[in-house]
Amino acid sequence: MKIRFYNAKILTMVSNQDIFEGEVWVEDNRIIYVGPTRYSKDKWDKEIDCEGNVLMPGLKNAHTHSGMTAFRSLADDLNLQDWLNNEIFPREAKMTSEDVYHLTKLAILEYLTSGVTAIEDMYLTPETIADACIEMGMRCEIVSGLNKFGPTLEVLENRYKNLNGMNELIGFKMGVHAEYTCEKELLLKVNEMIHKYKAPLYVHMSETKSEVDECIERYGMTPVEFFDSLGLFDFGGVIYHGVWTTPNDRAILKKRNIIVVTNPGSNAKLASGIAPLNDYLKEGIPVAIGTDGPSSNNALDMFREMYLATVLGKIKEMDPTAIPAMEVLKMATVNGSLSLEHKDTDVLAKGKLADIIMIDLHQPNMQPVLNVAKNIVYSGCKSNVKMTMINGEILYYNGEFIGVDVEKIYDKAAKIMERLK
Amino acid sequence: MKIRFYNAKILTMVSNQDIFEGEVWVEDNRIIYVGPTRYSKDKWDKEIDCEGNVLMPGLKNAHTHSGMTAFRSLADDLNLQDWLNNEIFPREAKMTSEDVYHLTKLAILEYLTSGVTAIEDMYLTPETIADACIEMGMRCEIVSGLNKFGPTLEVLENRYKNLNGMNELIGFKMGVHAEYTCEKELLLKVNEMIHKYKAPLYVHMSETKSEVDECIERYGMTPVEFFDSLGLFDFGGVIYHGVWTTPNDRAILKKRNIIVVTNPGSNAKLASGIAPLNDYLKEGIPVAIGTDGPSSNNALDMFREMYLATVLGKIKEMDPTAIPAMEVLKMATVNGSLSLEHKDTDVLAKGKLADIIMIDLHQPNMQPVLNVAKNIVYSGCKSNVKMTMINGEILYYNGEFIGVDVEKIYDKAAKIMERLK
Repeated sequence: MKIRFYNAKILTMVSNQDIFEGEVWVEDNRIIYVGPTRYSKDKWDKEIDCEGNVLMPGLKNAHTHSGMTAFRSLADDLNLQDWLNNEIFPREAKMTSEDVYHLTKLAILEYLTSGVTAIEDMYLTPETIADACIEMGMRCEIVSGLNKFGPTLEVLENRYKNLNGMNELIGFKMGVHAEYTCEKELLLKVNEMIHKYKAPLYVHMSETKSEVDECIERYGMTPVEFFDSLGLFDFGGVIYHGVWTTPNDRAILKKRNIIVVTNPGSNAKLASGIAPLNDYLKEGIPVAIGTDGPSSNNALDMFREMYLATVLGKIKEMDPTAIPAMEVLKMATVNGSLSLEHKDTDVLAKGKLADIIMIDLHQPNMQPVLNVAKNIVYSGCKSNVKMTMINGEILYYNGEFIGVDVEKIYDKAAKIMERLK
Repeated sequence: MKIRFYNAKILTMVSNQDIFEGEVWVEDNRIIYVGPTRYSKDKWDKEIDCEGNVLMPGLKNAHTHSGMTAFRSLADDLNLQDWLNNEIFPREAKMTSEDVYHLTKLAILEYLTSGVTAIEDMYLTPETIADACIEMGMRCEIVSGLNKFGPTLEVLENRYKNLNGMNELIGFKMGVHAEYTCEKELLLKVNEMIHKYKAPLYVHMSETKSEVDECIERYGMTPVEFFDSLGLFDFGGVIYHGVWTTPNDRAILKKRNIIVVTNPGSNAKLASGIAPLNDYLKEGIPVAIGTDGPSSNNALDMFREMYLATVLGKIKEMDPTAIPAMEVLKMATVNGSLSLEHKDTDVLAKGKLADIIMIDLHQPNMQPVLNVAKNIVYSGCKSNVKMTMINGEILYYNGEFIGVDVEKIYDKAAKIMERLK
């Protein structure tokens, strides 16, 4: 399959490369040309006139719990612990792996509308998350959410071996849910596994002030310090949230090559706080962006998250120059790929995987076109996503999901909720 | 013209009325029936199957500067005074009334995509704002932005007399730009006018801390106290922003029946601060929502503003229960009408004006449908706006602007910017 996109504005996200007018050529799942308009005698399976719209790398949702679509608008306006203990955990106990499969498919529809081409998904049943992603064509790193309630370390190790490499779209990362849901002994065992495979660690960390305070009470250290003292960051990794980090925490994150995934919508809605993105940027700690799950956000909309990342950053610093638009786009694309350990999805360039989105400039919120990057971050909306292509497949185009019966997915989710409600 | 909407979920916004399934009938520009499915032998010009989607009152954008679409993405990441003095004022000096006409049309397209059925617009040339709104079918209260640079009081009085009543869609409000752009003598003269017409006053107020500090330095009073001391609030009115009000300010606002219009996106992006919405709610001061102008926001998207109003409110209070979803919907509809002094656009009920929007639930971000109000505020997006009807006319439906050549409007805006850039 060879596809030629022409008449496009191209935002490659290759650093310091300006936007330019030209073409992108795709063969199977790879990009074979990015550059100015060029004559080609190739035979194309499809030639797409981009009508002056933008082609750019897909957005990476670097932290989510897709299966929680079930709980959207079910339990809002609660604090984190009440929400988790009284509303979410009891219902999750009744969820089957098949439920997670169907609810993940619902989430994937929403990702496609928002230009998301890869997700980092921590949820109950990795095997059926993988099934849903493969069926729908979504690129996904499934992250272990191991904690004191399960699964066993054997299961973790088997998943690491079996899910990695099972399909070109799927990967699996070592991780634990959080410090506060794991005993020290369990963490020591996970640490052995991390060292056995030289694997980076993925974990929710420093999301709320009380989480940090309780960890200090337990161990005399912040969660970042405590995990580092155990050796859990010896091969790098990713912390989700990172709202309440100290200067010493940030020195550790920098030293250990940890990436912070910020979740501004969820942190605001749950009143957890505003992450110190400006400090991370100043100290050279890469920041990626995630939506978190649809029960705490409640949307899976990377455009809303990009806007929140910058405006909450400006509010926190009381400085309107903080977290500029280009930096936010880098977080949502290049740094997302970094946190997923996907080397070939970060930018548009020859040889990279064809994870590409088209942004519609022919809508009133994108006019006039004075600065494309600022338009996308400050006035852009997921309604501007005209196309989402993953691994060379066009999955969403002009508001249509290609080859998917959406109402069947909605019905399934509704039926599941009748049982879980 | 008689239109029947059937198979709808109806959110009337009449207080304490739950959402129900039924029909809305419109004759010319009025609603003639809202209720359960009913047999009718009437002849309909149009019967619309709502497919289980939501009908609700249109959203009111209670503070904007529509003509500033020109400056979108032109001058971001600056502080308020630099932005205003170095980037905006010099360009506005070159703007013609015809420019404002075309740029307002561009803004109206964006309002329609976001379910906005009425705006409160303060900008340079009220007459051509009126022309654009009448031509496009937008309901609008134009607000005087009088200040020490103009216009004269005679112009203000003539506009008040001529624009009010010129067309059923248009009104004009007495107002001044802000305390810091008006000398005391000018304010005293405006005060006479306010008293002559027993008119409420509309004004930007307490947007930034420095604005309040400087007013205290000048007059020994906060802007709210100072205006009240002059008598400018004797007939009520509206303050835009209200980010930095004191307890005494709020006592005055309550006593004088002032409405606060909050602009969370603009206040965050310019790092002005977070308005104390929770205090306004506690003290019974009505809050409406506005986008502010597209140069400081940069979108004209009431869905984003609704989400920001609640999540910034939760962050400010560090309380996830603050500013619940239903309260936000009331701000964006009923309270918007209150600030516009539009008695007949607040709710869906027999006899009210037909300013109605349809919200598409058949999109993944609205599934499952466990709570419609929460879906709209927490996971809703302007991409869910399926229809915008103003004064009985369907102006936007399924992504199409009815009877408008949008590319012509985009071209016009681009040409204007070549001149102003």
